[in-house]
Amino acid sequence: MAETPIRFGILGCADIARKVSRAISLAPNAAIYAIGSRSLEKATKFAASNGFPESAKIYGSYDAVLDDPNVDAVYVPLPTSLHIKWAVLAAQKKKHILLEKPVALNVGEFDQILEACESNGVQLMDSTMWMHNPRTAKMKEYISDTHKFGELRTINVVFTFAADQDFLENDIRVKPDLDALGALGDVGWYCIRAILWAYDFNLPNSVTALPGTIFNKAGVIISCGASLHWEDGKIATFHCSFLANLTMNITASGTKGSLHLNDFVIPFEEKQASFTTATESKFTDLVTGWVPLPSHHTVMTDVPQEACMVTEFSRLVKSVKNDGGVVEKMWPTWSRKTQLVLDAVKASVEKGGEAVSLS
Amino acid sequence: MAETPIRFGILGCADIARKVSRAISLAPNAAIYAIGSRSLEKATKFAASNGFPESAKIYGSYDAVLDDPNVDAVYVPLPTSLHIKWAVLAAQKKKHILLEKPVALNVGEFDQILEACESNGVQLMDSTMWMHNPRTAKMKEYISDTHKFGELRTINVVFTFAADQDFLENDIRVKPDLDALGALGDVGWYCIRAILWAYDFNLPNSVTALPGTIFNKAGVIISCGASLHWEDGKIATFHCSFLANLTMNITASGTKGSLHLNDFVIPFEEKQASFTTATESKFTDLVTGWVPLPSHHTVMTDVPQEACMVTEFSRLVKSVKNDGGVVEKMWPTWSRKTQLVLDAVKASVEKGGEAVSLS
Repeated sequence: MAETPIRFGILGCADIARKVSRAISLAPNAAIYAIGSRSLEKATKFAASNGFPESAKIYGSYDAVLDDPNVDAVYVPLPTSLHIKWAVLAAQKKKHILLEKPVALNVGEFDQILEACESNGVQLMDSTMWMHNPRTAKMKEYISDTHKFGELRTINVVFTFAADQDFLENDIRVKPDLDALGALGDVGWYCIRAILWAYDFNLPNSVTALPGTIFNKAGVIISCGASLHWEDGKIATFHCSFLANLTMNITASGTKGSLHLNDFVIPFEEKQASFTTATESKFTDLVTGWVPLPSHHTVMTDVPQEACMVTEFSRLVKSVKNDGGVVEKMWPTWSRKTQLVLDAVKASVEKGGEAVSLS
Repeated sequence: MAETPIRFGILGCADIARKVSRAISLAPNAAIYAIGSRSLEKATKFAASNGFPESAKIYGSYDAVLDDPNVDAVYVPLPTSLHIKWAVLAAQKKKHILLEKPVALNVGEFDQILEACESNGVQLMDSTMWMHNPRTAKMKEYISDTHKFGELRTINVVFTFAADQDFLENDIRVKPDLDALGALGDVGWYCIRAILWAYDFNLPNSVTALPGTIFNKAGVIISCGASLHWEDGKIATFHCSFLANLTMNITASGTKGSLHLNDFVIPFEEKQASFTTATESKFTDLVTGWVPLPSHHTVMTDVPQEACMVTEFSRLVKSVKNDGGVVEKMWPTWSRKTQLVLDAVKASVEKGGEAVSLS
């Protein structure tokens, strides 16, 4: 007999929930069980247009999803300002939580979510999908290879997209009462995560916002950047913005090798993902070319990265729910560190680019 | 009857002079005429091992090259600290000057060189070879296209290479009495030039050195970076170092398009050079891929970029020498702006990362 899949309830009809609903359907160990919205009509429409099973429960509130004893886990794509309320409630109702990023408005709020999850024994994972792409594991393998990559010295990460006028006026990501962290919380989250991922989640000693932060009229960041540094001279920079054409670049240089890719958050194509490496690159005798040439690597991704994420999350949930396992702390620890650095960048922005210590 | 080529004298036997000697041979309007070194033996060896014509004059001093009335132009690959002396002398001897970068230890010195060139009516060009690669013109065309690229908002440039122990101990680029600007003057020059090139040589309002500068024991910079910003919110960052694997990355994002390349200074291969562009990049409906995909562009370079440089320089020299033309001020103006920003970065490094104004 097949194992019962982990049954998901979805809180709200956010656009991103379409993609994650599909991912839940694609994951072999997960199933869509319920959706709740403040509007029953919206929830009904969402379920119909996203191919939910006939049996899916349609609720007119988030509470109803949390009160359904058959819901094992919830996916929370609500605006950041609502995370603390609904993630804490979900944990109290013993629901495992797949939480959209940024995980909270600040690390203080996130710690309350964490505490609720811990005291109720539920698994928490943030929805940073690219972490689960098989390409990510391959890249990690490369930058962890002391012979091929050596020690990471510097990494630059850029994530921008050109928001249209409607987005810049109406999207929740530019509203101080909804996603108050703006571009830093949205695209900046990914940049910070990539930097921490590359540095094995060792926190930088300090963080300095770069000059040139742009705010909207409501005071929300729509473009900014920062420089991060570690005691031993390792550094990182990132730039994030809603004001420049879609760019998702990682350039990482180690003592022996380097890594490049231009689509780290959303791969160019769903079925495959690539990256470029170069190891001990030298010049030809007359400095007219490189020896060796960089290598291109392509990883097949028949299962999309968000489905890999749901599969991994559901595996952890199943372990806790059915097999007496303990929650995996790695994921919430990574979420917390990402939020901590994000908070430090915000603090540095607010102090006009003063360095903010993290040690 | 074929036109007489511009006759070059080369000052010194620097390693880079091997590549430029070959470029002079390849350029249709240039010829190697003389080489001078403090050691006649070294000059003789250099001429023999670099295929100089039998007729080439071999001199045991730089002065002898400058005193030869048949020398039209000199190539000056001497350590930066010697540029002011020899470039000024060359100008006074009415020799046109192809000058290695960084052009001087600071803009004050460069202004003396400029003054000597202007008052003696000689052409000056710095030896930033990639500026002359046909790829560079194609990239410029793209980022100047308001429909395809829009307005440049942010650019990140990285140029690092992993110097070996011998370089880090003995190369002129780590010696305070020779190339005192270290990695900033060597690899940083190219980063700054790329940023200015992308911003049409509009100087930034201010420059801020990033935390994490690394000096060698003699106090020479071997790793550093900076953030540049313009009044209207445009920004740039760069990182340069002798401590990480060869990386030559440009990531530029405009309001409508973006540009990437990973080999901007020395193309991977001599015969062709590529870059990637993306215009009005969006996501697929479910945000599982990009539409459209980025475009790859390859430019054939049958004539290497350094030979293109020598050809252009010689064309300008010929215009002044034979055709009553005036010197082209664009090139020395670009050299000066690059040096000005470089000086500002150095000043900011020395002030512990304080912003240095350029306006």
